[in-house]
Amino acid sequence: MTDPATMNTAPPPLRFAILGAGRMGVEHGHALIGLPDAQVVAVADPVEAAAQTVARLTRAARTYADPLDAIHDPDVEAVIIVTPTSTHAALIEAAALAGKAIFCEKPVAADLAETERVMRIVQERGVPFQIGFNRRYDAPYIQARERIDAGEVGVIEQFSATGRDPAPPPLEYLKISGGVFLDQAIHDLDIARFLVGEVTEVTAVGSVNVDPAIGEIGDVDTTTALLRFENGAQGVVQNSRRAVYGYDVRTEVFGSGGKLVMDATPKTALLRYGEGVGMDHYHFFMDRFRDAYRAEIAAFVLALREGRAPTPGAHDAVESLRLALACTRSLKEGRPVRVQDVQATP
Amino acid sequence: MTDPATMNTAPPPLRFAILGAGRMGVEHGHALIGLPDAQVVAVADPVEAAAQTVARLTRAARTYADPLDAIHDPDVEAVIIVTPTSTHAALIEAAALAGKAIFCEKPVAADLAETERVMRIVQERGVPFQIGFNRRYDAPYIQARERIDAGEVGVIEQFSATGRDPAPPPLEYLKISGGVFLDQAIHDLDIARFLVGEVTEVTAVGSVNVDPAIGEIGDVDTTTALLRFENGAQGVVQNSRRAVYGYDVRTEVFGSGGKLVMDATPKTALLRYGEGVGMDHYHFFMDRFRDAYRAEIAAFVLALREGRAPTPGAHDAVESLRLALACTRSLKEGRPVRVQDVQATP
Amino acid sequence: MTDPATMNTAPPPLRFAILGAGRMGVEHGHALIGLPDAQVVAVADPVEAAAQTVARLTRAARTYADPLDAIHDPDVEAVIIVTPTSTHAALIEAAALAGKAIFCEKPVAADLAETERVMRIVQERGVPFQIGFNRRYDAPYIQARERIDAGEVGVIEQFSATGRDPAPPPLEYLKISGGVFLDQAIHDLDIARFLVGEVTEVTAVGSVNVDPAIGEIGDVDTTTALLRFENGAQGVVQNSRRAVYGYDVRTEVFGSGGKLVMDATPKTALLRYGEGVGMDHYHFFMDRFRDAYRAEIAAFVLALREGRAPTPGAHDAVESLRLALACTRSLKEGRPVRVQDVQATP
Amino acid sequence: MTDPATMNTAPPPLRFAILGAGRMGVEHGHALIGLPDAQVVAVADPVEAAAQTVARLTRAARTYADPLDAIHDPDVEAVIIVTPTSTHAALIEAAALAGKAIFCEKPVAADLAETERVMRIVQERGVPFQIGFNRRYDAPYIQARERIDAGEVGVIEQFSATGRDPAPPPLEYLKISGGVFLDQAIHDLDIARFLVGEVTEVTAVGSVNVDPAIGEIGDVDTTTALLRFENGAQGVVQNSRRAVYGYDVRTEVFGSGGKLVMDATPKTALLRYGEGVGMDHYHFFMDRFRDAYRAEIAAFVLALREGRAPTPGAHDAVESLRLALACTRSLKEGRPVRVQDVQATP
Repeated sequence: MTDPATMNTAPPPLRFAILGAGRMGVEHGHALIGLPDAQVVAVADPVEAAAQTVARLTRAARTYADPLDAIHDPDVEAVIIVTPTSTHAALIEAAALAGKAIFCEKPVAADLAETERVMRIVQERGVPFQIGFNRRYDAPYIQARERIDAGEVGVIEQFSATGRDPAPPPLEYLKISGGVFLDQAIHDLDIARFLVGEVTEVTAVGSVNVDPAIGEIGDVDTTTALLRFENGAQGVVQNSRRAVYGYDVRTEVFGSGGKLVMDATPKTALLRYGEGVGMDHYHFFMDRFRDAYRAEIAAFVLALREGRAPTPGAHDAVESLRLALACTRSLKEGRPVRVQDVQATP
Repeated sequence: MTDPATMNTAPPPLRFAILGAGRMGVEHGHALIGLPDAQVVAVADPVEAAAQTVARLTRAARTYADPLDAIHDPDVEAVIIVTPTSTHAALIEAAALAGKAIFCEKPVAADLAETERVMRIVQERGVPFQIGFNRRYDAPYIQARERIDAGEVGVIEQFSATGRDPAPPPLEYLKISGGVFLDQAIHDLDIARFLVGEVTEVTAVGSVNVDPAIGEIGDVDTTTALLRFENGAQGVVQNSRRAVYGYDVRTEVFGSGGKLVMDATPKTALLRYGEGVGMDHYHFFMDRFRDAYRAEIAAFVLALREGRAPTPGAHDAVESLRLALACTRSLKEGRPVRVQDVQATP
Repeated sequence: MTDPATMNTAPPPLRFAILGAGRMGVEHGHALIGLPDAQVVAVADPVEAAAQTVARLTRAARTYADPLDAIHDPDVEAVIIVTPTSTHAALIEAAALAGKAIFCEKPVAADLAETERVMRIVQERGVPFQIGFNRRYDAPYIQARERIDAGEVGVIEQFSATGRDPAPPPLEYLKISGGVFLDQAIHDLDIARFLVGEVTEVTAVGSVNVDPAIGEIGDVDTTTALLRFENGAQGVVQNSRRAVYGYDVRTEVFGSGGKLVMDATPKTALLRYGEGVGMDHYHFFMDRFRDAYRAEIAAFVLALREGRAPTPGAHDAVESLRLALACTRSLKEGRPVRVQDVQATP
Repeated sequence: MTDPATMNTAPPPLRFAILGAGRMGVEHGHALIGLPDAQVVAVADPVEAAAQTVARLTRAARTYADPLDAIHDPDVEAVIIVTPTSTHAALIEAAALAGKAIFCEKPVAADLAETERVMRIVQERGVPFQIGFNRRYDAPYIQARERIDAGEVGVIEQFSATGRDPAPPPLEYLKISGGVFLDQAIHDLDIARFLVGEVTEVTAVGSVNVDPAIGEIGDVDTTTALLRFENGAQGVVQNSRRAVYGYDVRTEVFGSGGKLVMDATPKTALLRYGEGVGMDHYHFFMDRFRDAYRAEIAAFVLALREGRAPTPGAHDAVESLRLALACTRSLKEGRPVRVQDVQATP
């Protein structure tokens, strides 16, 4: 099956640096080491031990304290940015200017003007760019998209998404997160765009149920948004920062030809019959979406290898942010907001 | 186990008239004949053959062409009103004035003033009254309510309901139905009130996807409503007049203590493994809610027998209508509507 | 739809007597009163209060202490025999000799010779006869049979059935039950014959796990049987007298074209998310198979009305018993037993 | 979190050779490269291109044509044997004599005497040995075992397993496979031992349904076995070489405290509502048990690292084979066979 001649001429693997050695650095390190077409040559993190852990996992030769040093390492062709959110924009900019391919966790920035500015640089420099909306690479969502494209659902008329986390992140994180729509709901909003299309108007409500401290920093933890899509479809998105039963992501697309439901029950193939019937539920996004994290990195590497633009890219980064900002504004102002009215204020 | 003495003193069954011998007349006839505490003594329908069919099913001795004759039959203690919607108010009024217990299919009337007027008569006369919101007697909804009351869900924070019919009713029916919120969504809105509480504000959108003729009569066939509850919870309700896969009713209640989901898949306990795995879906409300129809009539009879007020009653008839009218107004005016602003205009 | 002329000439309902006013008398009384084509004219039970309860439910005019009196009541056309098992054969015989149509709960008798003798009388007299294998009228089993007949499963190659009760019946009952294969497993064995075909050889094992007293009366409470079918298919049947989670019936048919699984989870459409995900399980055969009990009686009445032989009939009563006896013999003798070797010993 | 000092003293990874670069070589290569504690230093396969593919995947420095050369490579501490079955015994023997830790796909050999001989060498040399019964590392099976150990199922009384492949392997493979019990059913038999305990007696039947050529080589493709366990439990195992709907593995453990079911429906979290409700089924053992393959290798590496004996080991290799041979003998001789009567014939 494999031709030795082909083997001998197999191109050398793409050389990556992983910027950030936290949980997502480990996760994406796992993804890269499983790909023969990728080689991690450097890991950057101010915490040396963390950098070394990921370097050991990925068999990377070098570690850096400063991600900029990794970006400017001439041996590095592509970077995986999983540093704190506030550094994303600057690192993307540096990597783009250095001509490196870029994978970055969402968001680029909490600010639309800054996001648009940096995405413009990426596009001007022509460097490949992928934003980390991992659900687009989760098997049921991929299949849903394929079936929608194949016409199985007919004309899409209604969309519904639920996204609930087991518990809110630390308050320090929430303070700089841009709010629940930018930080959490944006995944559901991106899936709405992925499966249905662009949204024209949103009406959002929100309240504080989980922790009064969240209200004190001007955020909410429980939200519902009503969406109107460009193609006429109607949508709803419900989010909460706390579900005692675990991590809860459900999406439904309804149309003239049928319905697709992406849910996550049960977690494993074990049913327990005792007092009624019981099964496990997903506890966290990592156990629910692990395969999707692997797949999005594999897709990024494959796109680089084949010279195609990776997806989702700069446009999706900007438009999902705009949609999340529209929800935020609707919540604040207590009225429907047209998405196109959300513009960067230079 | 059964004491003959008790048997001998068993009270005679309650004597019912069924007004209307259409599909629901047959359905409620089935329910009554299964109850030893009930006896159908009369069936009224202008179509003699239909009346006779239900009379044969229920072993009723008499048929009437005019429901008023059945109401005034001195042998009749209680009436089941399943005539065309436009006649409900007048028949309720007549039955109340005649001192008969009343079960009536929803709605009392499409008009709030008329509904309030008739409900006032019912209350003034002190006759037992139950409105046909059958889902309140469906096993999973009953259990959900019990678990909510027991505190299992904690503080309710989010509500979500989907209601889709396999196909729209005839256009002639739709013309007098009062619109999709009054005719279809009202079941989901009533369940919202049943499980969560009163709604203070609604924002509704709607569109015509199923049949342009529905638009021509000023109605819509696909709707989404955003609800704000008095207790702070958020809700969404999505409805459609056409689901190619059948009858689709799903309800979710989320709170600080967990989540309850009432869904309906699969219809039967048969899984088919061939090209993937397949199972049947409910085709119509009759096969999905048959047990609930039986249970609501049984509950009505039991309440009469025990001298308790049946439920849901006059208040629920009025408030669910008000809520549906608020959705209708929000759709028409393109803005959030406070439910309490919907008042009868005398 | 209904033609008054037809209505007026509708044949009078068939006149039934219910023999036995225990749990199954109530159950079948419910079924009959729901059928316009049936009229219960008499109920027989030595316990007068019980007879009166069923008479009140079915609006029957007369009660008898002695079932033979009901059989010989000239107004009675058909009998439902739900008396204690030990009386079945004599009552069937009396009813057959009196020319009455007969529905009888299984079994006819625990003895093959007696069963064959009585079935012969039924057939000689030409009275309609149906034996109460209710699962054959459960929706998923009916659909399974239709799909098998339609060729969806292809050539059937493997069969698997599980039948578990929540708790054993009283010891007094077990003593006269004929043993677990005749009393409990016979339902699964009948379904094996219904869905796959005749069985040629069985190998059965059994043990006492639930209650030592069951062993002391020479019975077992936990059994597994290996079946070989005439058409080459292989089968297994597992039974237990006690499942702490409730009533557990699962059947699987596997063939060259796919697989059909009839299971019963969850009981209701309510999923509870808290500590994992939970749902209810069926507690007893009554809540699992209620619809099947109604359907088998409806089918009996319809067959009588249309002049067709009801099913399952005398042949199924005999052959299922022979199969159960083969399992019993295999268990006792610790070796495979050919079903045709089980013959009545006159 | 990570202490640099710890990092610096992290032990060097264990050095592996992968013997065999077919499908399972790739699979286990993926597992090893994801483990920081493992390093693949050599890959052996007579097909150079295949060896290079796995070497590239695992970043291994060397390839060998002859697995013995890899075994004797002084840099190699442990070997993963995924060569053709007929070579397993010899390679295990060589590796044991060379003092290398051994992971080997099942079976050691199709012959009991040869298996016992080689396992004896492994134990005499004291080298760590793990046999590739991957299902023991599948999450639901692990959890089932934990719950059984915790007493949740109480006393185990019944066991049931189904194992069906989508299609039979090539005839050339079947000829040397040792028959369906040794090649396919052995996984279910091993799980029976894993979850319930040792089996004392088996009664097996088999037939040819899938391909007459399978019969011509003296094998069968559809089997059912009745098991009696040492602890009194009863069991059944059904296998087929062909299921048109895919890969079908289901296991049920029933006891005095409840029931555990390990099934695999649906494959993904996508439900499709159209003509009924549809979902995907697993197509092959690779997509069903991928995580288990990763987990068994991770467990092997961890056991080596921690100096514990890996599991399942030599005893399980021998006893599962003995059980499969007992089934084979029962099928051939048409009678129950005591497992202890199956002994190596020197």
